[in-house]
Amino acid sequence: MTNEKKRKQLFTLLDEIEAYERCVGKMQFDMECCAPEEGLEQAGEDMAIIGKQIFKLTHAKKYVTLLCELYADGEGLTPVQKKAVEHLYDGYAREKNIPAKLAYEIDVAANRAYADWLRAKKAQDFSLYRDSLAALIGYAGKLVSLRDERKATVYDTLLDDYEKGGSIAQLDAFFASLKKRILPLVQRIVAEGKPIREDFMSRPVPIPRQEAFSRYLLELEGLRKSALVLMTTEHPFTDHYGPHDIRVTTHYYEENFISNIFSTLHEGGHALFMQNEPAELYENHAADNMTSAMHECISRFYENIIGRSEEFLRFVSPKLRELSGGVFDDVTDRELYEAVNVARPSLNRMNSDELTYCIHIMIRYELEKAFVNGGITVDGIPALWNAKYKEYLGVDVPNDEEGCLQDVHWTGMFGYFPSYALGNAYGAQILRTMQKDFDVFAAVAKGELNRVADWLTEHVFSIASLTTPDEWIRAITGEPLNVEYYLDYLEKKYTALYEICC
Amino acid sequence: MTNEKKRKQLFTLLDEIEAYERCVGKMQFDMECCAPEEGLEQAGEDMAIIGKQIFKLTHAKKYVTLLCELYADGEGLTPVQKKAVEHLYDGYAREKNIPAKLAYEIDVAANRAYADWLRAKKAQDFSLYRDSLAALIGYAGKLVSLRDERKATVYDTLLDDYEKGGSIAQLDAFFASLKKRILPLVQRIVAEGKPIREDFMSRPVPIPRQEAFSRYLLELEGLRKSALVLMTTEHPFTDHYGPHDIRVTTHYYEENFISNIFSTLHEGGHALFMQNEPAELYENHAADNMTSAMHECISRFYENIIGRSEEFLRFVSPKLRELSGGVFDDVTDRELYEAVNVARPSLNRMNSDELTYCIHIMIRYELEKAFVNGGITVDGIPALWNAKYKEYLGVDVPNDEEGCLQDVHWTGMFGYFPSYALGNAYGAQILRTMQKDFDVFAAVAKGELNRVADWLTEHVFSIASLTTPDEWIRAITGEPLNVEYYLDYLEKKYTALYEICC
Repeated sequence: MTNEKKRKQLFTLLDEIEAYERCVGKMQFDMECCAPEEGLEQAGEDMAIIGKQIFKLTHAKKYVTLLCELYADGEGLTPVQKKAVEHLYDGYAREKNIPAKLAYEIDVAANRAYADWLRAKKAQDFSLYRDSLAALIGYAGKLVSLRDERKATVYDTLLDDYEKGGSIAQLDAFFASLKKRILPLVQRIVAEGKPIREDFMSRPVPIPRQEAFSRYLLELEGLRKSALVLMTTEHPFTDHYGPHDIRVTTHYYEENFISNIFSTLHEGGHALFMQNEPAELYENHAADNMTSAMHECISRFYENIIGRSEEFLRFVSPKLRELSGGVFDDVTDRELYEAVNVARPSLNRMNSDELTYCIHIMIRYELEKAFVNGGITVDGIPALWNAKYKEYLGVDVPNDEEGCLQDVHWTGMFGYFPSYALGNAYGAQILRTMQKDFDVFAAVAKGELNRVADWLTEHVFSIASLTTPDEWIRAITGEPLNVEYYLDYLEKKYTALYEICC
Repeated sequence: MTNEKKRKQLFTLLDEIEAYERCVGKMQFDMECCAPEEGLEQAGEDMAIIGKQIFKLTHAKKYVTLLCELYADGEGLTPVQKKAVEHLYDGYAREKNIPAKLAYEIDVAANRAYADWLRAKKAQDFSLYRDSLAALIGYAGKLVSLRDERKATVYDTLLDDYEKGGSIAQLDAFFASLKKRILPLVQRIVAEGKPIREDFMSRPVPIPRQEAFSRYLLELEGLRKSALVLMTTEHPFTDHYGPHDIRVTTHYYEENFISNIFSTLHEGGHALFMQNEPAELYENHAADNMTSAMHECISRFYENIIGRSEEFLRFVSPKLRELSGGVFDDVTDRELYEAVNVARPSLNRMNSDELTYCIHIMIRYELEKAFVNGGITVDGIPALWNAKYKEYLGVDVPNDEEGCLQDVHWTGMFGYFPSYALGNAYGAQILRTMQKDFDVFAAVAKGELNRVADWLTEHVFSIASLTTPDEWIRAITGEPLNVEYYLDYLEKKYTALYEICC
């Protein structure tokens, strides 16, 4: 059989596999955004049946043979097709030695872990979760041990899974740099920073008005209405089923209008990425292969670098004032800018500010590294968590709910957290390059966000699914990841904001 | 293999088949209620892939063998299990001789027909639809000719498909009775009826208030919140995925608050039926096997018999007045009751009133009977349609959009229309029996709709999926369908309303 014939056969199988994947994706979306409470159990069972079908299709002999042969010899395939095959092969290689029985066991354990985590969090008691967590850590190690290829340690392997090329050595250096410049800055702000007015931040705005503003923001970001849906859910997320069907979700709180603005901008950033990968990638099953850090880079770019800039806030201010119906009439644009950028050591990652955010991530990184690789036992997690919050941020953790149980990620996604911090650093480095091409904040000040989206589409979205993170950031900026750009950005922004001299 | 073992194997296969069916159902729901415009094409293709899987599973040798063997010998099965097998076998027998190629051809033709119908309707030009319609009529005859068992004529067979036991002979008699008493009543109302005040009917009510009232109505009807979702769509419908996940949809128009009330009550009636079939039926794949007429009986019972009663309107009036914010302050409850019951010959079935509704259905029945069985050619449809509207309702049809192209049903569902009229007649007959057990409208006047729902659950919902329509109405009321109860009900209501002496 010619390679072209093999490729066509493989792609026909993938058309079917991806149809089932979109179907499961929509059932998940339905569970989060539509289904009534009583319907969730049946929905979970139905999704498991579709999941079994996907497993069957991706483990069928014909599919595996075509994939392995094209991976071994991709002569005649286009570069995009080669990348698609490589990516699919990576996924296959990672899982090929896992016995079906073990995969099932892990599924069951993960489901139980999620339920235990919810229960433990509600009870503010880590001990109710420790057994499940210990089991998951054990399974993570077991899965890594089954790989044909793996890195120096289990945690190195997991880091590499989420961010190709990632390792403890790289991230130790990365977080050391962050720590070195962020912690003193936080301390100086606490000690010397000027007071910032915040009294208006929780003034209520009716939800239909908030929704209208969210729609305005998504359009401003450059999203096509005809391919976009905005719905509400408990924990906001963005998902898509190809570039023509993107779902942004949010959660309105009448007394937290301001926070919803940044949540919407964040999710809109994800949506822009989904909307603007080249059609050739979608057509060749090569799209959507970027890492989480690359995706978070864009969402946090829009949320923080653009969204929390004075230029952006000034531009949207008239619309914000109009839609909020006079609620902020006694607040100046500058006061608004300052208030949405308040930096303050706190207990909670999700509600934290741009400056301290990476410290929250660093704490999680240090803990993961220790408990995944055996530096500490599971039982040592709460104490170490609390000690690090005290050491880095000076805060006392009152209970496990507000402490080590606050995030869902440790119900299985060990190694994911660093993506958020890496995304921030990529974003600042990309901004610097973008600014060489045009005056970014002058454009933002005029509401010309299309210039930002166009630049990202050309330089960033176009290659993300075809490159490793290192290749990607080099291709965009001409150099490897350099966290100092991010630290420069933070230092400049926050010393000015708090009027601390440098 | 024992029958019990066969049954278990069959039910295991059905668990999987129904999971895929729920999945397609939710994808359809997603298309109607969530998906963005650009996403529809891909969604349609994905649904076709799941549909192929359902076809494969329901045509697998093991499934068909188990089904046929248990149909031939159901010894040891419970009565409910026997009914489930019978119903599944009926569906199988109806389709077993259809070659896959023909099934595919018909799918393609139906999709094209739908598109042509939309186009023709927009252009107000039946000639753009005539070829597609002719093809569908041809296919309907072809499918009937492939059956092992069929009725006297093609249209008799189609009628029997939708309403077991239905035939031209039965429906000719049924509609003759309707015509005999309804037409003179309509004419007398037009000539002698007192004028009814309607000026307030299109006063605008903000949509969030309409939504709150819809939720109130659904709860009043007896639907469990935890198993129910209310969403919006273009053309309202109700669907469900088991008794724990029911989706009611509606369409709010700011200037048509009143009409939304009856649409919600109607869909809520469907939802009540879905919620209240016995658990044993769901557990044994025997639920949801009632006919469309039985379902429409309940939805129209709540919409008209309950919803448009003076007792009901008086009960909901304080809530309606509160939520509409004073908009109806100058309207008495009696005026409201009269206005929502205005009877008036018109062109449009969907917007027609309780009295003339069945005449619209009768016209469609007479046309279907003629064009399906060859009494007229397709090209004769518009003229015959227009002539019947003139003869029965005295109205001139200005164009095909408002005439024979107004309904979607003739893109394939020949024989369905009579269900609506039969449903109305069942409803009035059931009301009469219910009234022997308790004073229905005294309960409604106190808002005790739970008494109605409980009675329907015990006597109507419990057996619907296990009986033919004739068995069903006899079991509930002690006699076969007798349309005179419905005519008595209409006559009493409308002569009083319009103050026409009898």
